[in-house]
Amino acid sequence: MAEYDGLKEVYLREKSIYHGRVFDVSERIVRLPNGKEAKREIVTHKGAAAVVPVDDQGMVTLVRQYRTAHETVMLEIPAGKLDSAAEDPLVCAHRELMEETGLKAERMEPLIRMVPTPGYCTEAVTIYLATGLSAGRAHPDEDEFLSVEQMPLEDAAAMVMRGELEDAKTAIGLLMAYTKLR
Amino acid sequence: MAEYDGLKEVYLREKSIYHGRVFDVSERIVRLPNGKEAKREIVTHKGAAAVVPVDDQGMVTLVRQYRTAHETVMLEIPAGKLDSAAEDPLVCAHRELMEETGLKAERMEPLIRMVPTPGYCTEAVTIYLATGLSAGRAHPDEDEFLSVEQMPLEDAAAMVMRGELEDAKTAIGLLMAYTKLR
Repeated sequence: MAEYDGLKEVYLREKSIYHGRVFDVSERIVRLPNGKEAKREIVTHKGAAAVVPVDDQGMVTLVRQYRTAHETVMLEIPAGKLDSAAEDPLVCAHRELMEETGLKAERMEPLIRMVPTPGYCTEAVTIYLATGLSAGRAHPDEDEFLSVEQMPLEDAAAMVMRGELEDAKTAIGLLMAYTKLR
Repeated sequence: MAEYDGLKEVYLREKSIYHGRVFDVSERIVRLPNGKEAKREIVTHKGAAAVVPVDDQGMVTLVRQYRTAHETVMLEIPAGKLDSAAEDPLVCAHRELMEETGLKAERMEPLIRMVPTPGYCTEAVTIYLATGLSAGRAHPDEDEFLSVEQMPLEDAAAMVMRGELEDAKTAIGLLMAYTKLR
């Protein structure tokens, strides 16, 4: 990092704007490399885990759900928020996989700790490749409505390449899993 | 969409919480498929464009910058916010490429319209593959401090596969460009 000190912003102070259930919002004042002060709007989020579950036949399990921010149904890899910023994303990954799809994984291999929007949000999503799958029983959260779907991983990766799967964690997870397993 | 009506949430009303320079925040009340009401916290963002600039020798140009939300310097593809939600992302892509790297592109091919955080934010990032590059003069925004770096696209894609480039648009853009061009 020392070699990039010329790019660094120094934290000065922060004002809390909003305390929500999913995220908080604050205004942070930083000192820029040129000595001036600037205001940064920050969304603070606990983080999340996401899972690419691939079975021995090369089939991946995805979940379809309504996303009100985009007013559309989206097809995504299973994922969920950490219970707290301190929760091990691996624990969250196993829990969300089971809750949303009913799948249990013998192996969870981390693919990437991905940052969706580095410019203004603290969220990071750790994405795992889950293999050695067996069926349990799904139990979505109350107020969570999902449709579970399976397809060949190769077809899902081809959908990403055609721009048909818009969700960032889904696009990254599927391309990385396909590159690794093919 | 009709086949997924069982997943749909119906918009009821919205309360504005915060009006910022980069994003707005609101609380939206929706009716769930089970008839109950639920509150959704929404970040409204104009959207952005991002560019994977690859020259005739297969070198990609990246920018390194400090990201205060993650308190670290990150290596990313060139990108920037749309001037307004109505701006053509292609116009934004050309502008941001020139501002951040000084590069002019003969060809801009859309790779994907990517949604970083579908659960709570309206942002979409259209990612382009830029080729036919020629050098102009970079002119970053005041208060924007960047370091421009070049490397073989193959090396950048390998960094993504090792989990070393965390930014979502960067990971997706590099993997898609590498898959397309190789």
